[in-house]
Amino acid sequence: MRLRFTKMHGLGNDFVVLDGVRQRIALDAALIRRLADRRFGIGCDQVLLVEPPRLPGTDFHYRIFNANGSEVEQCGNGARCFARFVRDQGLSTQDEILVSTAAGVIRLYLEEDDQVRVNMGIPTFEPAKIPFLADAPALTHALEVAGQTLHLSALSLGNPHAVILVEDIDTAPVAELGPLLERHPRFPKRVNVGFMQVISLDAVRLRVYERGVGETLACGSGACAAAVSGQRLGLLGPSVRVSLPGGDLRIEWQGEGRPVWMSGPAERVFVGEIEIAEE
Amino acid sequence: MRLRFTKMHGLGNDFVVLDGVRQRIALDAALIRRLADRRFGIGCDQVLLVEPPRLPGTDFHYRIFNANGSEVEQCGNGARCFARFVRDQGLSTQDEILVSTAAGVIRLYLEEDDQVRVNMGIPTFEPAKIPFLADAPALTHALEVAGQTLHLSALSLGNPHAVILVEDIDTAPVAELGPLLERHPRFPKRVNVGFMQVISLDAVRLRVYERGVGETLACGSGACAAAVSGQRLGLLGPSVRVSLPGGDLRIEWQGEGRPVWMSGPAERVFVGEIEIAEE
Repeated sequence: MRLRFTKMHGLGNDFVVLDGVRQRIALDAALIRRLADRRFGIGCDQVLLVEPPRLPGTDFHYRIFNANGSEVEQCGNGARCFARFVRDQGLSTQDEILVSTAAGVIRLYLEEDDQVRVNMGIPTFEPAKIPFLADAPALTHALEVAGQTLHLSALSLGNPHAVILVEDIDTAPVAELGPLLERHPRFPKRVNVGFMQVISLDAVRLRVYERGVGETLACGSGACAAAVSGQRLGLLGPSVRVSLPGGDLRIEWQGEGRPVWMSGPAERVFVGEIEIAEE
Repeated sequence: MRLRFTKMHGLGNDFVVLDGVRQRIALDAALIRRLADRRFGIGCDQVLLVEPPRLPGTDFHYRIFNANGSEVEQCGNGARCFARFVRDQGLSTQDEILVSTAAGVIRLYLEEDDQVRVNMGIPTFEPAKIPFLADAPALTHALEVAGQTLHLSALSLGNPHAVILVEDIDTAPVAELGPLLERHPRFPKRVNVGFMQVISLDAVRLRVYERGVGETLACGSGACAAAVSGQRLGLLGPSVRVSLPGGDLRIEWQGEGRPVWMSGPAERVFVGEIEIAEE
């Protein structure tokens, strides 16, 4: 059968998006790996499957799969592409979309300037919930890494994050310290590591070493973690432009106990059809 | 405007193929780079543009562009994809296609088993024509590289090739010796370097370090160079299966002064449409 798809990206994090509402699609790990292959398939970081709603009051369900076929819970860049996709496809005409995912229900807003605004949930600083081995929550924690003492913020946005302040993002030791921190014994489930340079009260530059992946062009939850950490340290205000290698995100947070909001672009690159074997 | 394209590959060497017969396409370097980008565009090694014939007696003209926008003369994998494309698109119903390229006119045959057969031209062993600094043609030449003496065959198939025999292709020092040989002072225009393990009179395994690129999944002219060199050394017969990391090619050669024939697959992966700015 011919499978119709749309290729999209959010700040360079790219997706093959499939309409599983109008098409019946049997996705297995082998098919996902084939679709994600950049030479023998379409090529993407993740495959995003849009499905009919599963919960009352929601508009859709969606699932995200890594290129190796494994299912993942959350992806901020993917959420924005999902919202833009259902609107472009005519599957929804609303500006507000409520969608269930493996990580829970999320709320998305299509904004006037082609940006998508996503509720990224309430950040947690409780060590056991990150998880991070520490006696109590603190604004920064001292960690011994490669013979030096680093001071970092530790928090969770559904996934664990460490954030380190640096003087200059261009010379930050992302490739050296990223893998050492990712697998530091005090992060039992490993961690995403953000290196942040504060430019002003409402602007930072950020590079993220993603857990299990390495440095990426843009990490949505990493941008939220960085803005939240900087605000708690008194370095940033409630609305921050986070400049990542792939482009800019706007992160807003009204303080502890409140959700973090992320706004950013979602681009459609092309549409296509690929022949796949009949089930 | 919406540009229609087909994504194809020959042994993993991948192409965005454009029908410039039925579509008017103004390709500039910026558009080529965008189409070739694997995250922000479609993604490919080369863009292949099919055009109406320019010479009497030919069926088409085609042009090949690298991902950086520069035009290249020859590509065996691209030639096979071109032939499959014009047949699939209904631009030709013939089994034999004559096409002009920047490297001259080439003849292609669509075979029954979905393979495409390409006349890759007559190999040259004359040092000045490769170019290679040597007093006279020879079956093998001794070269000093990294403190050791290597024995290699040197020849041209429109582009320069060096071929070295190895005991075991899996442990061949491609990454170490490839770049040193590519830029060896005796190859003034640099060289493609093939590492060949002879399996039998009609089968070899080959890895190629391509000039300006590095090791690739499959190099068509490199496969021709390897089979020709092995035949001249008395190690191979006139028809050889060359197994590359991306798959197999069949190379046939009837001896000096005769053209080399290459047969191999060309796969269509998907078709699509991408929005590009109006000229």
